[in-house]
Amino acid sequence: MTVRQLTLPELVEACGRLGVTHVGLWREPVAAHGLEATAGLVRDAGLTVTTLCRGGFFTAADPGERAAALADNRRAIEEAATLGTDTLVLVSGGLPAGSKDLPGARERVADALAELGPYAQRHGVRLAIEPLHPMYASDRCVVSTLAQALDLAERFPAEQVGVTVDTYHLWWDDQAPRQIARAGASGRIHSVQLADWATPLPAGVLNGRAQLGDGSIDLRRWLARVAAAGYTGPIEVELFNERLWARDGREVLAETAARFLAHLGT
Amino acid sequence: MTVRQLTLPELVEACGRLGVTHVGLWREPVAAHGLEATAGLVRDAGLTVTTLCRGGFFTAADPGERAAALADNRRAIEEAATLGTDTLVLVSGGLPAGSKDLPGARERVADALAELGPYAQRHGVRLAIEPLHPMYASDRCVVSTLAQALDLAERFPAEQVGVTVDTYHLWWDDQAPRQIARAGASGRIHSVQLADWATPLPAGVLNGRAQLGDGSIDLRRWLARVAAAGYTGPIEVELFNERLWARDGREVLAETAARFLAHLGT
Repeated sequence: MTVRQLTLPELVEACGRLGVTHVGLWREPVAAHGLEATAGLVRDAGLTVTTLCRGGFFTAADPGERAAALADNRRAIEEAATLGTDTLVLVSGGLPAGSKDLPGARERVADALAELGPYAQRHGVRLAIEPLHPMYASDRCVVSTLAQALDLAERFPAEQVGVTVDTYHLWWDDQAPRQIARAGASGRIHSVQLADWATPLPAGVLNGRAQLGDGSIDLRRWLARVAAAGYTGPIEVELFNERLWARDGREVLAETAARFLAHLGT
Repeated sequence: MTVRQLTLPELVEACGRLGVTHVGLWREPVAAHGLEATAGLVRDAGLTVTTLCRGGFFTAADPGERAAALADNRRAIEEAATLGTDTLVLVSGGLPAGSKDLPGARERVADALAELGPYAQRHGVRLAIEPLHPMYASDRCVVSTLAQALDLAERFPAEQVGVTVDTYHLWWDDQAPRQIARAGASGRIHSVQLADWATPLPAGVLNGRAQLGDGSIDLRRWLARVAAAGYTGPIEVELFNERLWARDGREVLAETAARFLAHLGT
């Protein structure tokens, strides 16, 4: 998504030229290119798919919407398996229209996990609940902290449900470091994502994620925390940023790789 | 601030006509009208000033900036005393330019409170740390949760330092209800403010607070929580909203009073 201006073949080629061996994919471009075609493309290029983004949106109270969401998530699980990734990232969903009941919405997320967890496990896929920044609590994700995500995940086996640690969403939270240790201790850090935080935020607050090093987050310190918690998996960089999307995608990918090495290389 | 389009004399007159007997003031309009003149204006009208907003901005690392901030806060304490309110609301300040050190900035807030608490107490004024929504953590307020605000406040006597509970900033936080009880048990709920949460947020995310009832917050439930925690003081409504500011201020004030009764009246 960091370079969504690239087609999947362009992305795969650019990764190859930069020596990037792992890539996180979103469902929409995969569907546009074709699921089997994408699986073949990355396999032939020797690329490993780190995660598939995203499932979720579990908070509808309406039974029909709810059943549709579960069906869609079962498809997402199958897609993840086809792409060869073991992790499906979940964004929980916001409040249903007119609702003011955050605890109720969070409970419906748990209900959905109970239905999907075993299905995911049978497909060799782990679900990773991603807490989003509290500014998204009403319209996108009622799970706002890593503690909440773990409270949900721990109702299920770690092989079925864990969490995504994304610096953009968690950097402000003084409890997050302790929760990262908690997540690591139970083997539930299923995915780690980086983006930097900068202001002013754009209208709608969706596409203001900053390039690594351009914001307020001590990224090296956050990576040290997930490492100390035992995480040895891939690190994704996920930047939603209109200005990056307006630029040449290959250049943005190269810049991002260079920033990663500059700010996080040893 | 909800009706900043009104001059202070217009505001006082409009309050009188609506039967509003308490008003929260900001320093800037008070300074514009004159401190002594404002004190006389509200006194003559029989209005009680609930709080003065706002002191704070304690996070500068530069010694000169730091001394200037402390001096300005001593003036704010004196202004609060002159206006007859016992509460000065504090917004802690964001990260200094270029800094990525949230814990360090939070510790400088504590240092400032240690210097200002006794001064405030001598003037009969309590300091009320206001946690702001985490979306303001980098550029406005490094204190993002009620738990953090209480961790700071509890280093000092409750007569000196407490907290502001503002629904707009806290509504997403599943830990906030427990923290409200904690704040009430130690007599530290010094101020309560209401605004509703609606999306999409405007660019800069400052002026999107929704009129009571137009958003996602179960306001009645939050007021019940502060009441259960023993709070019997005034309830302020603080709406930063460009659309409300563009309308006739008397009409907005009347609408706000009506909304308060509709959504929170018994």
